[in-house]
Amino acid sequence: MLTPAEQDRLRVVLVNSRNPLNIGAAARAISNFGFAHLSVVHPYAVAFQEAKSAVNAQLVLRAAQQYEQLSDAVADCSFVVGTTAGTRRNLIEPPSTLEAAAAVVRAHLRSGCRVAVLFGSEKVGLSNHDLSHCQLLLRIPTRTEQPSMNLGQAVAVVLYELAARDPGQAVAAKEVRDAESPKQLATAGEKERLISLLLEALAIHGYPHRSTRAQMEEKVRRLVRPLALTAPDLREWLGLLRQLLWKLRAAKAPRD
Amino acid sequence: MLTPAEQDRLRVVLVNSRNPLNIGAAARAISNFGFAHLSVVHPYAVAFQEAKSAVNAQLVLRAAQQYEQLSDAVADCSFVVGTTAGTRRNLIEPPSTLEAAAAVVRAHLRSGCRVAVLFGSEKVGLSNHDLSHCQLLLRIPTRTEQPSMNLGQAVAVVLYELAARDPGQAVAAKEVRDAESPKQLATAGEKERLISLLLEALAIHGYPHRSTRAQMEEKVRRLVRPLALTAPDLREWLGLLRQLLWKLRAAKAPRD
Repeated sequence: MLTPAEQDRLRVVLVNSRNPLNIGAAARAISNFGFAHLSVVHPYAVAFQEAKSAVNAQLVLRAAQQYEQLSDAVADCSFVVGTTAGTRRNLIEPPSTLEAAAAVVRAHLRSGCRVAVLFGSEKVGLSNHDLSHCQLLLRIPTRTEQPSMNLGQAVAVVLYELAARDPGQAVAAKEVRDAESPKQLATAGEKERLISLLLEALAIHGYPHRSTRAQMEEKVRRLVRPLALTAPDLREWLGLLRQLLWKLRAAKAPRD
Repeated sequence: MLTPAEQDRLRVVLVNSRNPLNIGAAARAISNFGFAHLSVVHPYAVAFQEAKSAVNAQLVLRAAQQYEQLSDAVADCSFVVGTTAGTRRNLIEPPSTLEAAAAVVRAHLRSGCRVAVLFGSEKVGLSNHDLSHCQLLLRIPTRTEQPSMNLGQAVAVVLYELAARDPGQAVAAKEVRDAESPKQLATAGEKERLISLLLEALAIHGYPHRSTRAQMEEKVRRLVRPLALTAPDLREWLGLLRQLLWKLRAAKAPRD
């Protein structure tokens, strides 16, 4: 079982939700299974207001955080998980089963990390841009002919697995070992600084092959996000990149 | 995993449901997890009609059976399970956890029995009369302060456990995970190419603070080695670094 402190490190993040009932249902499941934090990114504004003013709006809904950008919603999390129905063709890697992913998430929560679990919109799920923020994808094993779940139901199933389907302490100890005891992992926000510096360095002489900034950003984020960087190592990488950038700028500057 | 024939023996029975959205959500979860049969007992008539005429009414909803009496709905089932939030005081026996109950239900389905799983109304759950039809009670392990789940979410969690949390399947999931991890990680030799390129880029304008090449090499290797890079990602990093290096060299070359 996760302790209350461990449960408190989880953020359920709804991206582009359109339906107040689903936002309310997500909040209810969070409360049912002992979690606390709901964030909504760029929701349909009316839906979020409607959900918040619902008669039985609980603590979870009242405390829910709203963001315009996904990067802000996950800035303080060091592990970000995306949920998918597995129907998108161009996934970078096959998603884990919910069961396997939950073991990894619990290991991170136990090690002191904050973890975000992202759920996409009712219509289209998470976009490629959203997925580029994720270190792990999970799929609830629905049947192939009818894979797409209702948003509120998907949140409930994921939180049930996380909170109530813990195989127990002995196994949990092994999971932490397997997950390479992520003691002091850098947060998503810290990694964004690394991504910014890399993009800046790459941009100084123009992106290659006419790539757009958005394309490069997605590519670099996709490469940096899965790296299990510790916070001290990340600081060293930032130092190295700043040196490189300083030289690139100096070289670019006109010589007298 | 349950076979399709075994899944076909399960009936989800909603007793006294008031909300068409919940009836629809139950049907969707039944479809998501490969089951087929929904029965409603004494529903609020308008709700059932509204659910059935919903735009995306699936096969499950169209085939749903309506009964006035619970006894009729479960007449062809040899095992009947009731769901409870565990708040009722006068339960005959303490309810099983969902996990334990699901194992019993699967055993019955495998032995050729039809099994009904009952869900009560949104307001009050199953009555004592309803419970008297049950051979087993199950409880989804929600937290004591907020035990009562949304009906559609409760159905989804129960069916997920029944269909996707079979211990046989769990072993399969673990095998997939174990098979995934070693497949594609970059080798130490490949990482050395990354280290070389990084050092070359850093050296073009001289190492900082009069560091020696040996010191920088040690530092960069210490930073790169722990990264769990996949082979394809490593190739992408090499591509990015070569671009950067090319620009650094071009900038360094004397201009005419």
